[in-house]
Amino acid sequence: MSYESVIQENLNVFLGEFKRLLRVRSISADERYAGELEEAAAFIQDELRELGAVVRLLKAGGGAPAVFGELEGASDRTLLVYAHYDVQPAGSEAFNPAERGGRIYARGASDNKGSLMAVIHALRVLLEVDGHLPVGVRLLFEGEEERGSPHLAEILESNRRLLEADEVLCADLGGVTEGGTPVIELGLKGILLIELLADSSSHPSVPGEEVHSSFAPVVANPCWLIIDALASLREDGRVAVEGFYDDVEEVDSEALALIEKASPLLSYLSGELEIKSELKPELLRELVLSPTLNVNMIAGGHVAELQEPRCLQELRGRVKTIVPSWCIAKVDMRLVPSQDPDEIYRLVEAHVRKRAPGVRLRKQASLKPYRLPWTHPLAERTIRVAKETYGKEPYVLPNSRASGGMSLIPYVLKAPMTSFSIGAYGVAHKPSEYIRI
Amino acid sequence: MSYESVIQENLNVFLGEFKRLLRVRSISADERYAGELEEAAAFIQDELRELGAVVRLLKAGGGAPAVFGELEGASDRTLLVYAHYDVQPAGSEAFNPAERGGRIYARGASDNKGSLMAVIHALRVLLEVDGHLPVGVRLLFEGEEERGSPHLAEILESNRRLLEADEVLCADLGGVTEGGTPVIELGLKGILLIELLADSSSHPSVPGEEVHSSFAPVVANPCWLIIDALASLREDGRVAVEGFYDDVEEVDSEALALIEKASPLLSYLSGELEIKSELKPELLRELVLSPTLNVNMIAGGHVAELQEPRCLQELRGRVKTIVPSWCIAKVDMRLVPSQDPDEIYRLVEAHVRKRAPGVRLRKQASLKPYRLPWTHPLAERTIRVAKETYGKEPYVLPNSRASGGMSLIPYVLKAPMTSFSIGAYGVAHKPSEYIRI
Repeated sequence: MSYESVIQENLNVFLGEFKRLLRVRSISADERYAGELEEAAAFIQDELRELGAVVRLLKAGGGAPAVFGELEGASDRTLLVYAHYDVQPAGSEAFNPAERGGRIYARGASDNKGSLMAVIHALRVLLEVDGHLPVGVRLLFEGEEERGSPHLAEILESNRRLLEADEVLCADLGGVTEGGTPVIELGLKGILLIELLADSSSHPSVPGEEVHSSFAPVVANPCWLIIDALASLREDGRVAVEGFYDDVEEVDSEALALIEKASPLLSYLSGELEIKSELKPELLRELVLSPTLNVNMIAGGHVAELQEPRCLQELRGRVKTIVPSWCIAKVDMRLVPSQDPDEIYRLVEAHVRKRAPGVRLRKQASLKPYRLPWTHPLAERTIRVAKETYGKEPYVLPNSRASGGMSLIPYVLKAPMTSFSIGAYGVAHKPSEYIRI
Repeated sequence: MSYESVIQENLNVFLGEFKRLLRVRSISADERYAGELEEAAAFIQDELRELGAVVRLLKAGGGAPAVFGELEGASDRTLLVYAHYDVQPAGSEAFNPAERGGRIYARGASDNKGSLMAVIHALRVLLEVDGHLPVGVRLLFEGEEERGSPHLAEILESNRRLLEADEVLCADLGGVTEGGTPVIELGLKGILLIELLADSSSHPSVPGEEVHSSFAPVVANPCWLIIDALASLREDGRVAVEGFYDDVEEVDSEALALIEKASPLLSYLSGELEIKSELKPELLRELVLSPTLNVNMIAGGHVAELQEPRCLQELRGRVKTIVPSWCIAKVDMRLVPSQDPDEIYRLVEAHVRKRAPGVRLRKQASLKPYRLPWTHPLAERTIRVAKETYGKEPYVLPNSRASGGMSLIPYVLKAPMTSFSIGAYGVAHKPSEYIRI
């Protein structure tokens, strides 16, 4: 009895179960689907129980539960596998899986129900063929990834013992290209979200209200405070905060060569960006290795009743010559190893306090970056297995260009994390999301 | 028969007529009051006809009419007097004039119906006592000042002949302080309103939509374009546009001394600004003599559904980590003599084109600054008359800190303009607006 024959024998059953899960609208960002999140969690619990796993729901702060499962193995080594069962919002037809041309199209097919069910079915095949698992396996299937994993830290912290593992596999990063080449992303960028606020109370003598702009020579303008503070944060496109780059890890030339080899991946990104012209190969290096400092919103003065889609039209022509009484900006920074968000926040705070004392800073959220060195035994094993399975040299990126709550896992559990998923690369969150069968 | 006795004899009639005009809600910024603007214009026409004036309505582009009146004088010299009959919006009780403590409280009492009716009644007294006017008088009473005089230029241009005068008196600037000291503002700052726009179409390869902020390293951020452009416009609180200050007129030390003498006026401004601490006397010089560059609004990124009054609360906590697809800012510049708004716009445009090529600039509106030299015979006469009338040395400012359409008059008519009004200084646009009887 080979793995392959068992897979072929059970394929229709496996696909049937997968489609059942795809039909559940487990949209975590929308409260109306709380019931369907529970339905998905219950379905996964049943699947794990069928494997013979010890199963629990891990909850924190009223969020959607994470499904935990535990299976013993032949050795005393343990692997923790992470995936998530929640999905991004989508039209109702996206929850009616359509099979054509060797693919299943549906919301969540790639991100991340496909890989999640693949893990379950792989374990089933291993158990059926070998009668046992080579190592102990712990499963952590989250239900809030698509809304920023707000309770993952608490779930990890309060269940350290339960989740303890020698190694972690993130079955959500990377994927497989349309041409069938595996993509391995060995980590995630960190993130730091901050708000900059200024209002006229920051001028000692003028509390509160906007004033006629004829008073501009004698009153502080909160918009200028924010603009000057933001402008001071950058110089020639680089972050001008002292010490910002100090902890950025050098990437060796072999890793750079890996990124260069992966440059065909840019074609997937160019699709995502609707980029018409060709992207230069260097851009992938930028995407992977550059920390960023991005203004994602700014607002100050007379912007009431502003509707985003039509705003440029709506705002043009309106005049209100005032010195505004407020301004706010939001900045997200994507950090690379080993930049520490807390330390970066301290540096930015010191910078703003010195250069723009009238501006108040607030930290909204942060996540540490994580990167498994590509020469780590776990990374080498991942790359080898991917190559054996797909018969192609995988594309290996030191880390994803994005960030996610799963970067917490290796820190809290003090175990190295690798990634491998079977999701179609570059289709996540798109209407055309699919997975290859 | 003295002027004084005729005034005393007719005081109740004069005040009655004034109150009739105060009751008309001639709010020019609100279309619903178009009928009341016409009612006010008709009332003023009747008043002028009673004086024996030749009367006309001057209209342009569907705006509220300006009332024109002409009276012959004993000499062939002609004086044009400007005032306006429209008012700022206010609660309904503000149109029910209340007399107490020697004052009349009402919207428009000071700004500008008080001075307008004072001109009419002064002419009536002169005619009654002397039987004739010393010079020909032309009257131009505008109905759109409070909405930025959008049609004044056209009215002036198309009626040059009719309005022709040797000298112009603006009965809207300056006023009289609570203590009874006249304030003479011999001109107005100019104004230049511009918009700065950036959207993702300014990046050749990324049309249209916002993208996930993980792409920040490879896509242009319109917010950064606008922030950097704005920041580059200033340095150490001064305008950093090359040539911006080139045409700023030197003010002689005697004029500076006049401003210093007028520093008690700061107490009225501090009221307007709700300033708690004391303003330094230098600030008046700043207000009068400094050209400004003021951001009156900025918006970019995810600011939809933003309601101004609560915005800081509402916006805090929201997260949308995107690279925005648009940003807009509006800037007003108050210019001093002899800065030319068209030339300044060219300088700003050249600056932005060089420093921030991705930013589009648009000119919204402009007015030239105007200043009558305080040593000009017309200014000297104004100062002398004010002193004789009020028995106090007037406060003289080279120009108002504000701007207004009336700065067009001396340019179009090629005649010097002075100012004198009996409005209470510092109460315009306030609920407590009043005028002394």
